[in-house]
Amino acid sequence: MFDKGILLIISGPSGAGKGTVVNELMKDDRFCLSVSVTTRRPRPGEKEGSSYYFRTEAEFKKLIEQGELLEYALFCGNFYGTPIKFVEEKLAEGKNVILEIEVQGAIQVKERYPDAVLIFLTPDSISALEDRLRGRGTENDDVIAMRLRRAREEVKLIQKYDYIVLNDLVRNATSQINKIVDTEKYAAERNTDFPKKFLNGGVD
Amino acid sequence: MFDKGILLIISGPSGAGKGTVVNELMKDDRFCLSVSVTTRRPRPGEKEGSSYYFRTEAEFKKLIEQGELLEYALFCGNFYGTPIKFVEEKLAEGKNVILEIEVQGAIQVKERYPDAVLIFLTPDSISALEDRLRGRGTENDDVIAMRLRRAREEVKLIQKYDYIVLNDLVRNATSQINKIVDTEKYAAERNTDFPKKFLNGGVD
Repeated sequence: MFDKGILLIISGPSGAGKGTVVNELMKDDRFCLSVSVTTRRPRPGEKEGSSYYFRTEAEFKKLIEQGELLEYALFCGNFYGTPIKFVEEKLAEGKNVILEIEVQGAIQVKERYPDAVLIFLTPDSISALEDRLRGRGTENDDVIAMRLRRAREEVKLIQKYDYIVLNDLVRNATSQINKIVDTEKYAAERNTDFPKKFLNGGVD
Repeated sequence: MFDKGILLIISGPSGAGKGTVVNELMKDDRFCLSVSVTTRRPRPGEKEGSSYYFRTEAEFKKLIEQGELLEYALFCGNFYGTPIKFVEEKLAEGKNVILEIEVQGAIQVKERYPDAVLIFLTPDSISALEDRLRGRGTENDDVIAMRLRRAREEVKLIQKYDYIVLNDLVRNATSQINKIVDTEKYAAERNTDFPKKFLNGGVD
């Protein structure tokens, strides 16, 4: 059957627990994280090609012009982007590539690469999200209010997504994401070569 | 989340093992079988509403005219059809309704009811299908040749389906179908009311 990887775009409100879920998925070597390219300077210990690909602004703009980024954004004066080449290489190796990006970037990627699977990872309610944000104890009331406001906007874009994954428990969320991958690999539209394989002796 | 059932249409080549897989699924009360309506006379032991709904030809034609059948076909001089009402009642109760029908009927249903999930259940190759048909020892060479010819045609329609499920082992096929159901229930397009639930205190 479909033997390439699936590009999984995981986004959702700040405080949804995306980082924890992604770290849990990464324990399984079916998955790998997309490595971003950035114009930000390397911090101590960061390595070219594993933390980020570090590029000058001129180089970054050339990547944009040449259509080599799946999406990009400017953040605190630095550019961040997702290089297509890395993603495609990993997908060809059969790895499911995880891209953890914010909602607007996720929608950009889906337009550019319709085979991507967009997952909206979220608690089941705005009040559960608020509990999580307060539970962290790291943000003040203004920041929490801003994040909840943004979450109310983000959830309206749910129809741009393929799946909703509820992060009530990390193991439920990762189990659901594994099911999504297993299901998508058998989607008819990813297996247009099935009739040929079927007639010529079977699938791998 | 989506709390109605999913309409699962299972079709695929004769000899794929659809009956065995459906029987296995039916051990789980999340699933129920669609009950067809027919103009055929009841056989001894068959009960109205559990085996079939038995109707006269005039009554059956009225069901067609009134648009109350998801699909129908004439077979050996008798009409067989799938009543929408039964399917919708069971879906509303949260049951996943299984419809085991041939390929053309499956495509009819999908056009009529786009929320249906079309599963093409099949061995992984035409030669595996032939082995299965020969292994049964119940059909002669002509019948087997006819079924293989038909399978070659059916597999060309794979793009009309949502998923391919390989029936190498019954437990793999049923596990895959369960994953499809679990995944589809969290599809964004089945949960257009999620933003409302999210803002008003959570999902069930």
